[in-house]
Order: sequence, then C-alpha cells, then structure tokens
Amino acid sequence: MNTPLSSSHLSLVTTFSHPDFSAPRFTAAPDARFIAAPADGVLPEGFFSTTNLPTYVRVNGEWRMPRAPRMDGALVLDATGVLWVREMRCVLKGDLVAVGQTEDGSEGIFVDTQAFLGESAEGEFKFMTSEVSREKPIDYSLMARLLIDERARGGYPIWVTGPALVHSRARADMTWFIENGFVGALLAGNAVAVHDIEAAIFGTTLGMTGSGEATSGGHGLHMRAINRVRAAGSIEAAVEQGIITNGIMHALVTHNVPYVLSGSIRDDGPLPGVVADTLAAQDAMRHHTIKATMAILIATALHAIATGNMLPAFVMQPDGSLRELATICVDSAEFVVSKLKDRGTHQAFGVVTNAQDFMHILRLYVEREIDQRRAASGASTDRAVAGAR
Amino acid sequence: MNTPLSSSHLSLVTTFSHPDFSAPRFTAAPDARFIAAPADGVLPEGFFSTTNLPTYVRVNGEWRMPRAPRMDGALVLDATGVLWVREMRCVLKGDLVAVGQTEDGSEGIFVDTQAFLGESAEGEFKFMTSEVSREKPIDYSLMARLLIDERARGGYPIWVTGPALVHSRARADMTWFIENGFVGALLAGNAVAVHDIEAAIFGTTLGMTGSGEATSGGHGLHMRAINRVRAAGSIEAAVEQGIITNGIMHALVTHNVPYVLSGSIRDDGPLPGVVADTLAAQDAMRHHTIKATMAILIATALHAIATGNMLPAFVMQPDGSLRELATICVDSAEFVVSKLKDRGTHQAFGVVTNAQDFMHILRLYVEREIDQRRAASGASTDRAVAGAR
Amino acid sequence: MNTPLSSSHLSLVTTFSHPDFSAPRFTAAPDARFIAAPADGVLPEGFFSTTNLPTYVRVNGEWRMPRAPRMDGALVLDATGVLWVREMRCVLKGDLVAVGQTEDGSEGIFVDTQAFLGESAEGEFKFMTSEVSREKPIDYSLMARLLIDERARGGYPIWVTGPALVHSRARADMTWFIENGFVGALLAGNAVAVHDIEAAIFGTTLGMTGSGEATSGGHGLHMRAINRVRAAGSIEAAVEQGIITNGIMHALVTHNVPYVLSGSIRDDGPLPGVVADTLAAQDAMRHHTIKATMAILIATALHAIATGNMLPAFVMQPDGSLRELATICVDSAEFVVSKLKDRGTHQAFGVVTNAQDFMHILRLYVEREIDQRRAASGASTDRAVAGAR
Amino acid sequence: MNTPLSSSHLSLVTTFSHPDFSAPRFTAAPDARFIAAPADGVLPEGFFSTTNLPTYVRVNGEWRMPRAPRMDGALVLDATGVLWVREMRCVLKGDLVAVGQTEDGSEGIFVDTQAFLGESAEGEFKFMTSEVSREKPIDYSLMARLLIDERARGGYPIWVTGPALVHSRARADMTWFIENGFVGALLAGNAVAVHDIEAAIFGTTLGMTGSGEATSGGHGLHMRAINRVRAAGSIEAAVEQGIITNGIMHALVTHNVPYVLSGSIRDDGPLPGVVADTLAAQDAMRHHTIKATMAILIATALHAIATGNMLPAFVMQPDGSLRELATICVDSAEFVVSKLKDRGTHQAFGVVTNAQDFMHILRLYVEREIDQRRAASGASTDRAVAGAR
Repeated sequence: MNTPLSSSHLSLVTTFSHPDFSAPRFTAAPDARFIAAPADGVLPEGFFSTTNLPTYVRVNGEWRMPRAPRMDGALVLDATGVLWVREMRCVLKGDLVAVGQTEDGSEGIFVDTQAFLGESAEGEFKFMTSEVSREKPIDYSLMARLLIDERARGGYPIWVTGPALVHSRARADMTWFIENGFVGALLAGNAVAVHDIEAAIFGTTLGMTGSGEATSGGHGLHMRAINRVRAAGSIEAAVEQGIITNGIMHALVTHNVPYVLSGSIRDDGPLPGVVADTLAAQDAMRHHTIKATMAILIATALHAIATGNMLPAFVMQPDGSLRELATICVDSAEFVVSKLKDRGTHQAFGVVTNAQDFMHILRLYVEREIDQRRAASGASTDRAVAGAR
Repeated sequence: MNTPLSSSHLSLVTTFSHPDFSAPRFTAAPDARFIAAPADGVLPEGFFSTTNLPTYVRVNGEWRMPRAPRMDGALVLDATGVLWVREMRCVLKGDLVAVGQTEDGSEGIFVDTQAFLGESAEGEFKFMTSEVSREKPIDYSLMARLLIDERARGGYPIWVTGPALVHSRARADMTWFIENGFVGALLAGNAVAVHDIEAAIFGTTLGMTGSGEATSGGHGLHMRAINRVRAAGSIEAAVEQGIITNGIMHALVTHNVPYVLSGSIRDDGPLPGVVADTLAAQDAMRHHTIKATMAILIATALHAIATGNMLPAFVMQPDGSLRELATICVDSAEFVVSKLKDRGTHQAFGVVTNAQDFMHILRLYVEREIDQRRAASGASTDRAVAGAR
Repeated sequence: MNTPLSSSHLSLVTTFSHPDFSAPRFTAAPDARFIAAPADGVLPEGFFSTTNLPTYVRVNGEWRMPRAPRMDGALVLDATGVLWVREMRCVLKGDLVAVGQTEDGSEGIFVDTQAFLGESAEGEFKFMTSEVSREKPIDYSLMARLLIDERARGGYPIWVTGPALVHSRARADMTWFIENGFVGALLAGNAVAVHDIEAAIFGTTLGMTGSGEATSGGHGLHMRAINRVRAAGSIEAAVEQGIITNGIMHALVTHNVPYVLSGSIRDDGPLPGVVADTLAAQDAMRHHTIKATMAILIATALHAIATGNMLPAFVMQPDGSLRELATICVDSAEFVVSKLKDRGTHQAFGVVTNAQDFMHILRLYVEREIDQRRAASGASTDRAVAGAR
Repeated sequence: MNTPLSSSHLSLVTTFSHPDFSAPRFTAAPDARFIAAPADGVLPEGFFSTTNLPTYVRVNGEWRMPRAPRMDGALVLDATGVLWVREMRCVLKGDLVAVGQTEDGSEGIFVDTQAFLGESAEGEFKFMTSEVSREKPIDYSLMARLLIDERARGGYPIWVTGPALVHSRARADMTWFIENGFVGALLAGNAVAVHDIEAAIFGTTLGMTGSGEATSGGHGLHMRAINRVRAAGSIEAAVEQGIITNGIMHALVTHNVPYVLSGSIRDDGPLPGVVADTLAAQDAMRHHTIKATMAILIATALHAIATGNMLPAFVMQPDGSLRELATICVDSAEFVVSKLKDRGTHQAFGVVTNAQDFMHILRLYVEREIDQRRAASGASTDRAVAGAR
C-alpha cells in the first residue's frame, strides 16, 4: 500500500471526512461501556486499547472523538464528561475506562480504518510494489512544499533526530531549519546535544574531525564538553556565557524553540536539562506530540518508534475535518522504517538514505521553493500593481 | 500479504484449481490474436509480456496453458500448434506471437492472479504486517518437511547459491544436502566453485582460514586452485585425479547431480566448465528451472533474481492441478528479498539471516525429521508386525 | 586487527601481564596530580577521562589500578586512599580527581594499550582483512567452550538482549541458558519482558503468532499482558500467582538469576520493576558490569553500547593477572558491531547473523560440548577405576 | 587505516616515489625467474600472483614495472622483452611466466606495500576508527575538486554504476556528468541501459512512475523498450531514429563517450550492444581500466568488484611518479564497500548513502566549484587587466 504522501498529486496531504453517523450501523449501536479502574495504573480487564486512527466513542448517544489521541492508550471519561486517551500508568483508581474489543462500533467504539489503511486493491502482477525500499524515488520537492506550508499556516512540525545527524555536515543544515522557523519542537536524546556541543567547543564529534579522522586524545572531548555545561549549570547558561556559540542547541536556545532531551542508559554526563526519568520524558514529549501537525523522524529507531507510539495518524483541522499527519522517517536501512510501520505507524513515509544527505537536499529544495514563491509573489504583486493602474 | 508458505498449517503448500472456463466471461472471450515476428529476436508491437502466474490462452476456442512458463517472455504458437513461453531473443522471424495487453481474458489471454496474489483484506490496525523482516519467525521445521517430501516424491528442488555460502562452515552442510539427495540441481557462479575448490586444496577461502584469519601469501591461493583445475582440464577430471577430494563440487560430481556455473565479469580464471556466455548460461539454467518443483535461493542477489525471472510461481502436479512453487530466499538483509519480490517473484518466502546459520539449522531439522519419520515408520512397522501375529 | 577471541587457538582467551614498573619510563614518572572537584557532578578542568583498558595511576610512588574500571569516567582518590573510576555525575564537590591528558605515564597515569589494541602489522596485500563481516566464520564451538568454562569456574557472564530475541524461537533458547546456569545476570529493557510475558499469557508477540501472522485484535495484547502484571504488583508476584508460567522472566525469577530492566521512552506500561530513571538504571547495571567476566550482547544497539561503555576490556583473575573480557556482539547488520567498536568497545567480537539462529546454534554447541565432556570424563573415570585395580 | 583520500588536505591525492633501488636489499636481489606456461590458459606451478600495488620485477639486473597492472594476474615477459600483467586465460603455451611467492624482492619481485597500505600506528584508544561507516563525514567538496581537476588535465575517470542509479532522479544527474565532460567511460550492465531507455520512451522504470507508483500493465514496459531498440538494430540507431531522445544512453551516444554494457544472467533482452560473453566483456572493460585515472563505483557490488579487480591502486603520472588512483565506492550499506576492500581494493573510499542523493549533491558541489573557479579566474583576469594598464 502506498501511503497518501507518496501518491498525492493534487493536494499535498490527503484529507478525510468523518463517517456518516446517521447510518443504521451507527444509530443501532449501543453506548460504549465504562468500568472503573481497579487501582492506580491498572486498567479493568477487557479495556479497549487504542490505535492511532480516528476513533469515535458513543457517549450518551453521541459519537465523540477523544482528546490527546495516540495508540496503546485507554479511553477515559473524566468527571466533567470529557473523553481522553490516557496512558495506562496515568489512569487512577476509579477512573472510568472504556471496555470492548471490537472496533466496528458494535460496542460503541468505532475506529475509522478505511480512510487511512485503505484497500490495497491488488490482484494484478506488478513490479516494485514493496512499501519501503532504497529504490523508491524520494520527492524532496513535495516535502519542501509541505514544510513551507506548515510554516505558513503556523503548524507545529516536530523533528525527532538521532546523534548520527550531528556528525559533521548535517549539523549546519539542522541549525538552518531551526533558525528559519521550520521546527516546532526538537525531540532528541542526550547524545545529539553532546555531539553538537562538542562540535561547538572543540570542532569534533566523539573526537572525530570534520574530515573523519580520529584525533589523539579525542576520546575524552565529549566528556570535557559535558563538564563545561554542567559547570555552567544549564545549556541555556552555557549559551549565555558564550561557551556554546553555534550549532543546534545554540539555535534552539536563541530562537526559543522548545526541545526535549530524553535520557537513556547510554548517556554520558548527562547534560543538564536531560530528562533522565523516561516516564517524565514521555510526558514532556507528549506535550509536543499532541500539538504536532507534521513529524520528521531522522536516524533514530528508539526516538522514532517512541514518537510514533505517541502520535495520532491524523491532525484535526480548524474546520473540524481530518488530514493525515504527514510523517517522514529517514534511515540508512529499510529495516528501521519497516519496524516503525510494524509498530503501527503505518502512515510513515520511508526515505532510505544517509541522514546527512537527506538534510542537505531537503534544505536545498526548501530554499529553492522559497525563492520561487517569492519570485512568483513578486511577479503577481507587479501584475497586481500594473492591473491597479 | 503473507505468502501461503508461511501460513499453511494443514497442507504444506497451497494448491489451486483451474478457473471454471464455462463461466460467461470465458465463453464470451475471443481467441487470442497472433502476429508474426518481424525479425529474429524482435517481437511484434503490442506483444503480450508474460508473468510467472498461471496463464491461459484461448486457441481455437480452447483455453490452454503454455509450456515452459516464466515471466518477461512472449507467447509463441509453433508450427505444430503447441503454445510456448519464449524469451524474446529466442523468437525467430515469422514465429506467431500473441498480442494483447489485458490479462482478464477479454483479449483471449487470462492470467490467474487471484489464486496467487490473493486479496490482502486489510482494513484493520495491526502490528507486524511487513512482508519481510528479521523479526519474523522462520519455520525451519516446515522447510525440512518440504524438502523431505520433495525427495520422497522425486521432486526437483533447485538450489541457487552465492559464494558467501562457501566461506567455511556452510560448505559442509551444502555438501551434506547434495550427498543425501536433496539437490535436484545447483545453479551458481564461478566463485562458489573457486572458493570450494580452494578449500579442498588449501583449506582456505580467498586466503582466509577457517577461523577467519587472512594468511600471508593467501591472496594468490584461489588463483592457484583455479590453475590446477585448468591444468587438469575440467572439474570432473580434477575430482578423478584426486586434486579435489571433498566439498561441494566433489559431491556434485561423485553423486551425478547436475550443476550450472554461470559466468560473470567478476570471474577469475574462470574454471573449466563455467558458461562464460550469459545467454548460453541462461539457456543452461532454463534446462533446470522448467523442471523445478521447489527453489532455495541463498546469499545471492544476482543469481536469485535471475532464477526468479525464469521460474513460474507454480508447479503443475501429476493430476493436472497446480500448487505454489515453494521459493525460499535467504539473505542477511531484507533488501535482497524485497528486491526479488519487486522483480515479480512474489511467491518468495524471505528468511533474513546469515546463510551459514541457515544451512546449519536447516540440516539439523532435516536430520531430526528423518529420524522421527524413521522412528514412526519403525514403530508402525512394529505395530503392523505385532498386529499380524 | 583480529581480536584475540577469533584467533586464539591454544588458550581460549588471551591473558596479559602487567607492565614492568621497574623500567626507567615508569621510575622516572611523577605521581599523578589530583584536584578537588569544584561542585557536585562537575570535574576540574583537565580531568583525566578513562578508557576501558588497563590503567595504572602513580600514587605515593606506587602504580595502582583503580577499582570499578570503565570508560568515560574520572579517577577519584577517596578519603581512605582507595582509587576509583567514577562517573562524572557521581563525583561530589571536593572529591580528588586526577588530571592529565597523556596516557603514557609521563603525568603519572599509564594506559596499557599495547596488550589490547596490539600492533596491526599490516604492510602486506591481503584479502578478507575487514574486522566485521557476515562473510567471516563464526566459531560457535569456541563460544560454547567459553560459556561452559565460565560456568565451571563460577564466572559471571552478563547477557544483554534486545526484544528481537524474544520474537518466537529464541525465547525457548534464552530460557534454557538461564535454567542451566549460563547467565550471571540479564540486562534488558521493558520490551524484552513485555514480549516474553505476552508470549507466556497469549502465545503471541505484539499480536503476531509463532508462525508470523498478525492476529485480529492482536495489537492490544501486549497492553493486556502488562496490565495483568501491574494488577499482580510485580513480575515476581505474577510468576507466583501462576499468571506467568514459562519463558525468560519465569526462568529468571524461579532460578534467582538477577536482572535489570532499564526504562526507555519507547516503553508501554511499563512493567513493574522496570527502572524508569535512566541514571538509576545505569547504577543498577553497574552493579553487574563490575562483576562481569564475559559479555554477550544480542540484537540491541542501545543496550549493547550502554553496557560496552560500562565494561572494562579486561578481567582481573584471582592470581592478579589480566585476561581479555570476552565480549560477543550479535546483530543482523555489520553496522551495530562497528558502531559498538567505534564507541570504544574494541574487544567486541562481532557475529553478523539473525539473533534467533545464533541462540539456537549456540545452545546446540553448548549441549554437544557438555555431552562430550561428560563422555570424556566418564571415560577417564573408567580408566582411573581400571588403573586403580 | 584512513585512506589518503579522506585525510589529504594539502594535495588532493597522495603521490609516491619509487623505491631506492640502489639500496643493498635490491642490489643483492636476483633476477626474477620465468618458466614457460605448460598449456594455453594454464600457468606454471609456483607462478607469481599479482596485486594492485606498484610491482617491480628484476629483469637483466634492472627493476621494471609491468604494463597493464591489475591484481590476480600473471607476470609475462613477451618475446620483445616487454613485461606485462596478463590474466591466466590470456596466457598461451610457452609464454614466459614469473614464478615466486615472496613480495620483498628476494626472488626478484618487489611489491611496494608501504606507500599504499602504510602503517596503521594504532596503540591508542580512540573512538570512530572504523574504516567504513555511515557515520563518517563525506567530503563532497574534495570529490568535486578531484573531478574538475581530472577534467582539466584530460584524465580518464571511469564510472561504474548499477541500475538503482537510474530509478528516477539520478538519471538526470548522471546525464549531466556525461554531457559536461566528467565521464571518461561508463561501465555498466544491460539493466542500467534498459531502465534508462524505458524512462526515455515510457517515463517509467520497471513500470514504476517517477513518484514511485507501480502502474497497471507496467510490468511489460521494459520488454517493450528493449524490443524497440532491437527492432532499430542498436542503441545508436535508436538514438538516431528519435526513439531515445534523452537520458544516459542518449548522452553517451551523442557525446561520443565510450561505454561497455556487460551481460549477466539476469538480463532481459538483452539490448543490442550488450557484451553477453563475460570474458569478452572483461576484455572490453580492460580497454578502459588500463587508462583509468579515477574510478567512481556506484550502487553495484558485481561491477564494482569486477572493476576493482582490474584496476591498479595507482596511476603513473607523466613525470613517472605514482599517485593513488582515487577510487570512490558508493552504496547504501557498509557491507558492499567492506566487501570490495576485502577483495583487495584497499584504496577505495567508501561513501555510505543512497546513490541518488550522492549524485545530486556531487553535481551540486561540482557546479558550485566551477562557478567559484570561474569567478576567481574572472577576478584574476580583471586584476591582470587592471595591472596591465
């Protein structure tokens, strides 16, 4: 099944309407059933486990969508009658949790799979039908237009990156995207910031120079970089004090772009500001995923799958209609993208390439598109002016 | 879409019936149209390009299946009224070639896609739906039973292998499969035989010892091995003369198992017997692919795709019914299997693992299954004997 | 450079002596210099950053090795005169921290690189010299002997695994290793336990059956498994209550083998007992890494690199001599092993294969080796008995 | 060991001098010994097997380098006293072939390994020391300068590509490099030309559109494209007749850039002009490899290794000195580059990325560098003009 992102030509991203709830299958359905959670962080047996697809729950005869949609959550009806998707660990004893296992509305819960998973009307012998392959074309032009449109309408694109991005070249490109307003929030780990700050202070990453050589004594440089920031007290303080004068973290701080650095067991240091508690880190990430209107996941299996788990496959638009949440996953190997899809993030569009080359070309296409729009708009202004005479 | 191989429990491999040609869509269809080829090796415009699926052609009101089915061929009706699939280069000026582009019978040619490509009735949110992944289970037990059944009924399993197989351990396992009657034919390249013979003579492959060390002066050993066989005149002569005393080529020669060594531009030597002309090599391979009842493709993209192109997706059984041609493709990376499928060999079941470990475990399961069948048959004989008293 | 593990024939693992500290370069060296840490978790500028190699520090004219060696740490001299390697975050204000950047002893700190990194005496044209490749032989027999020897001498092999291990087949093999005394401790994440427990309760992993099919409604099964354990209160309680009756976690609990489940931002649930705080998780892991006498890292980049960071490259033996800490890293792709080495775990021996096949063959070899030793010891006992007559 | 290509800053490619043959080890050495070949295509036992490194053979007291150097060949002294490297199969009965296995000159044959394989003076703990990794920086700027310098001095860069290059985007970039004089010769297979010509005629590759969708009926389009060219008689004729109006083959034909299309067993058709005999194809390729001054190997294991086998690791410059033959190998996976090196092409510099992104960025850097040189040269002309006033 090709994702809408790859096949869309007329509009950039597919939009969908809500089901017609006046249809008999919906009018005949019962209200969803709710049972009180037996203990803090424990759901009632038979609880409904959410997906990332548009989900409608019948409450008092009305079909409603829950707030904060994501997969692997529970449906909780709060005291004020508001319906939420909540992580199991956030459910408290006595919270009303929806039960039921069918997704066709017959137990009062309807998951709209058609719009998103579609029908793969196969039945014909074809070549090149795999979903994820380095042999598939990559439409940088489309991705550039998506990003510029997001910026234009005040969208909230979240970028999720692994440390490979920072090894030399892509650091400048990532910085450029931040400085030019294309990043709603950056979700990453300690290592991304460590490499970036080592580069800012010492010009190396893990002791490797920009031309790829391991330097003598270089194995300690990332620790020295971390130590300086710890001495300063925070990344923000290190920027203010002129310890960090360029790069990704510098751009985030100076342009007030929010970021989350989630802790992991691999972390050296860690840097101040890293959220070492992974549940607190998930909460911090959720703060951004619920606002996301686009997601770009680059060179990280851990963070990509974590974010994919938290993201709905759709965005509700101002007019109440739904559109696909454009999700781009970049990795050197098909496996990471397939794994992300195998964990339910079916809407992900896979780009199989080196993360650094991806960033470089994407930036180039964004710059070109901006120039073209500017030229076109200048021309139309000229025409408008001429027409006004 | 899961292939039948992976999901079959009751019968090992799916079987299919022919379409009901008394249905109106077939009775209303015209005869296929044939046009003479304009020149040797050139097809008429609009020629029908074959697939590997069951194909029926209406000739004189009768739906017939062509002989020697494969993909990317032309349908040729010979002077005696026999219908063939022929490679473009084998078509001679004046040969009658079927034209038409529809595959639904409306132009007298029907491709039965349903049975094989099936319907992937999606429309439900699921995890783990990718076709090829190292995270998928591998049913060695099923593969062992398939191989033993093939041997029992006189099938013709073709094995297609790359040189990686021969580096140390798997060489002994491949030899075992040949010696024990599980190999109908081996299709490979010069390098497989070169590594095998270097191992037989010098105990190394490309100068690397069985424990993985590069040896001093080892870079020339494969050339010395080739030279000795060239001096002997043929691989067969080298076996006879005691130059090659063990391994894969030794087993093939001493057990009269046919093999094709196809030439490539990478070849050193080459060894005597290598078919350096690639079109002659394709002809030599076709000699075996048209007889194949099962295919095992291991650690080679070039030979796997070449063979996949030549294989039908089905085997006609003695009773005239069709069954899937069980096709197993083993590689360390998902990409090779996906690529094979993207070239139309949709029936391939992908096993993502190290070729040497695959061979080792497969052999183990085959040995166990044989022991169990023997024990069971011994027991039943005992029971039979007991019952006869 | 081939690691000793792959090239050793006489003894299984290389051993090394300490340097001769009566040599002039050592007798002429000064004591190491220590400076007080300026704040909690902040090191003095110029601190010495440790490696995983044998390190000797001159204190009061005596060359000493620090306790709890690992890379990326600081050398701390405590109030009682004991020398430690400490993570930056564990250093308190006022702690005495060694400074210096040379590793040749000239500042009182000597890192013994020769023994471990050796000289790669190249200068000859050879094939097959890459360090990590699927084309390299894998000596399962050697690994089996290492494991059995470890068990015999009361070693502490730590196993570090990713969730891919648990998808179907390898689960039984991992369980077998635990039950048979080959596992000192298991270091893993939430997902390993979640997949294992889903398999115990529902027979699926992420809703996928043992034969690889996605099941209807299967996407929620891992959440239902987690919920049952949360309801029980702990994994141990779930085992006691008969909720978990087989598999990896069951074996760990019933055989009193310690484990650490470290949290990550990808975690669903998490299960009770998961250490959600990554710094606490590192502390819990260190508890085991400092005792490790062997390490087997399977199908995980995150946990393998985390553990590699914490491990010394050597083990001190009862007689005070050093031997290489045999470290085996298994992954489907060369990249993970190379990355581990690029992060300094140079001693890792890479096995490029499917984790499940690795486990299966390794177990087979261990079983065979045990049988052979038993037979040999039985035979020698017989001889001994015969000789005594 | 980092290759000179990656570490060179002052000069782009390392140059080397010849050994000092007045040194005692050389003056004391004997002449090389030659023995007549016992049969056509068979070498005398003990023959010297060549490498791709600078090799000197003592003949009549004089150290000479053989012509047409490559690895896996024999040293043949022809009737006129000229020394050649010849493939085994090209040696005729009675040809004088050098024997000897030492490479240090002691048998009259000296292989200069030092200059090229160098000493990897390890012995220090470092991160990021792997040779091939997606985490290594790629110096597109350096590669662009190398290509432009080659063009400027009339070099002969050979490009060797796999079909993945042609799937959509990179086709235009490859065409650009041909049209702008950066390609000395293109070495490829049938599939590269088939995909390119299908794109020229139908706008698809294997039936896949430029935006990645499989088209209905698309599986036959590559066969239709081949058929049209076969009907025209040759690729050249198809260009002349306006059947092929754009793309790679069109550019090669219209710009008189030589190419070799080597046959393989995977080939459909094949296209007219494909050299189906692999030994003839090797001969055709050798015609170009002996002239090569640079090699760019993209997205092909088969052709890259084949070409690597034929290439010396060095170029003799007009002044008689040697420089490294800059060899760039691009692939999505580390494995192909490592495999190429494992087959002896140690000088290869690996670029781990998507071939299409590689081509796009490389072209961009070449265009920029040309613009800068033009600007600089314009400026200096201006200055020169100003100075002349």
